[in-house]
Amino acid sequence: MPRFPTLVGRGGARTGWTYARSGVDRGSIDAGLSALLRAVRYRPVGTGTRPLAVPGHFAGLVRVGRETIAITTDTVGTKSLLAAELGSWEGVGEDIVGVNVNDLAAVGARPCGLVDCLSLTRPDPAILRAIGRGLDRGLRTARCALLGGETAVVPDVVRAPDLGGTAIGWFPAERRPVTGATIRVGDVILGIPSSGVHANGFTLVRRLLRDGRTDVNSRGPSGRGSLGEELLAPTRIYSPAADAVADLASTHGLAHLSGGGVRNLVRLHPQRQFILDRWPVPPPLFEWIRSRGRVTPREMFQTFNQGIGFVLVVAPSGVARTRARLAAVGTRDAVPIGHVEAGRGVVLPEWDLQYHGYA
Amino acid sequence: MPRFPTLVGRGGARTGWTYARSGVDRGSIDAGLSALLRAVRYRPVGTGTRPLAVPGHFAGLVRVGRETIAITTDTVGTKSLLAAELGSWEGVGEDIVGVNVNDLAAVGARPCGLVDCLSLTRPDPAILRAIGRGLDRGLRTARCALLGGETAVVPDVVRAPDLGGTAIGWFPAERRPVTGATIRVGDVILGIPSSGVHANGFTLVRRLLRDGRTDVNSRGPSGRGSLGEELLAPTRIYSPAADAVADLASTHGLAHLSGGGVRNLVRLHPQRQFILDRWPVPPPLFEWIRSRGRVTPREMFQTFNQGIGFVLVVAPSGVARTRARLAAVGTRDAVPIGHVEAGRGVVLPEWDLQYHGYA
Repeated sequence: MPRFPTLVGRGGARTGWTYARSGVDRGSIDAGLSALLRAVRYRPVGTGTRPLAVPGHFAGLVRVGRETIAITTDTVGTKSLLAAELGSWEGVGEDIVGVNVNDLAAVGARPCGLVDCLSLTRPDPAILRAIGRGLDRGLRTARCALLGGETAVVPDVVRAPDLGGTAIGWFPAERRPVTGATIRVGDVILGIPSSGVHANGFTLVRRLLRDGRTDVNSRGPSGRGSLGEELLAPTRIYSPAADAVADLASTHGLAHLSGGGVRNLVRLHPQRQFILDRWPVPPPLFEWIRSRGRVTPREMFQTFNQGIGFVLVVAPSGVARTRARLAAVGTRDAVPIGHVEAGRGVVLPEWDLQYHGYA
Repeated sequence: MPRFPTLVGRGGARTGWTYARSGVDRGSIDAGLSALLRAVRYRPVGTGTRPLAVPGHFAGLVRVGRETIAITTDTVGTKSLLAAELGSWEGVGEDIVGVNVNDLAAVGARPCGLVDCLSLTRPDPAILRAIGRGLDRGLRTARCALLGGETAVVPDVVRAPDLGGTAIGWFPAERRPVTGATIRVGDVILGIPSSGVHANGFTLVRRLLRDGRTDVNSRGPSGRGSLGEELLAPTRIYSPAADAVADLASTHGLAHLSGGGVRNLVRLHPQRQFILDRWPVPPPLFEWIRSRGRVTPREMFQTFNQGIGFVLVVAPSGVARTRARLAAVGTRDAVPIGHVEAGRGVVLPEWDLQYHGYA
């Protein structure tokens, strides 16, 4: 996931697998990141462009002449290792688009272009063709142009394909970035289902597969296709949904639930509490991960999307209109998952979980 | 280097090291790339943004509302392996900026923002701090903001840090992209010196070091500092120079001599010949690489910048004004290196070399 400030949380027991134990230690990553960010002190003055401060948000924003541009960069991470194991590359090609445009969607930006950045062990035309097909499908869904890219063949640098990209977006007509600043007590929280684990938590998932000597070709938890296919399902793209509602004054906040899970909601407003009291039962794939790894609910909700990939925080008076707009672009499965109260952090009452604000 | 169409050339003998023999086979990379690009068919319509076709150029261009945005993405490639060997990370941090903003400079765009994308084996704060210091220095020189970034710790994907980024630029006031379309017979070709090999040719360089069992701590060819320090000198940043002349009508073409060396000039115009008959003697580092690897001049000029990192193609009447504007931003070392004739390709008469147009 892209950089965001350290989040702290509490609640839930500490047993079974955690993301840190699987090899991703958020604490030490955060320490390294602070070291980098503290060293970057330059802020441009008088160049005609102005970065806009959106603390802790999903995309960078910059005023460029008469327009505001949003930018996001992300990779598919270790999901590419599972793609390599299964020889299945189209889905991760589509993920390159999804992981980036969904972060644009979270600020209400409409995608206008993507560049991909691939570091490969070898220039295999079959793999690149499949990645290209995936990119094409993702770009088509997001209505986004491919503006260029970089393909480096660097077997001494990478063990397996490192697949990333950068997307830029903009705010048509009078649209302003959706930052969460207008979120009010009483707002309704809507969730749009995910298509699976998207491109998050794969370091943990791969560990479970290896430790359990699980055959990825065995039947998947949902009963549709193999386990490998379920895990590799490409990231659902929420750009058309976000674009359809970003102009409504009732759209107070948007969030992409990626690597931080529901913790990502904390970023929307420091003085609001997000009560997720109607969270749908997570799909079988998440239950498989949870039970197979004896992963705590606390860890599941801060590592995986748990079945909801995108969240809209909406004024109560705007809910009907929001759902109509979503339906008009084909998103008919948005469901109410909670509401906003005074306070801070994210609460999942049914699971006895709380995630706090910024550290 | 970022993607560009296959170039073919001829001339020069085929002995000694070539970039293909060192492990980078341009032909098979081009084949893989075509497979990817053929699969990406989607072109957006009716979204309010319009990609601008600039065949074979350095940056992607897109019309976004009332502005034109340029975008480039690139990595420092295998230069990071030498940085790792020497434990010296600040320079490659600066390179992340240079390799990207110089491609923006080649279309006359002013940088407005960069995102870095780092795939690491471990989140070492000392390394990240040094990379941050390098980023800061590069951003300061380029007058560019850091708008975000991604730091993935993925030891199963990368053997060594894979350091890349994406830069966006724009065209202030009435500036139009500089594409080379206005280049005329008789134009003067100016070159601005490089600071070394920049971030190109390192797969070959590392092969030479290994095969010759050369100590990177030994004295470098120029006699200033060690060989390793000379090789790691950060990419010179040409953004201020390009920004200073991009508004002049006499500025007909700009080129960043990166991975393709002088071949990159071919991209500027399909019906012009670029006669480089005043190329300065390449600095000692290039002579060291050439002799150590018995690399042909042909291969040297299409793999390395050979001492000239950025090229301006200027109407004869505009040369004095161009040099004055360059001097005003501190670029006092631009020199005439050739002129434009009718025909196609690039010619280096002194070396008996020709590089042809697009395949």
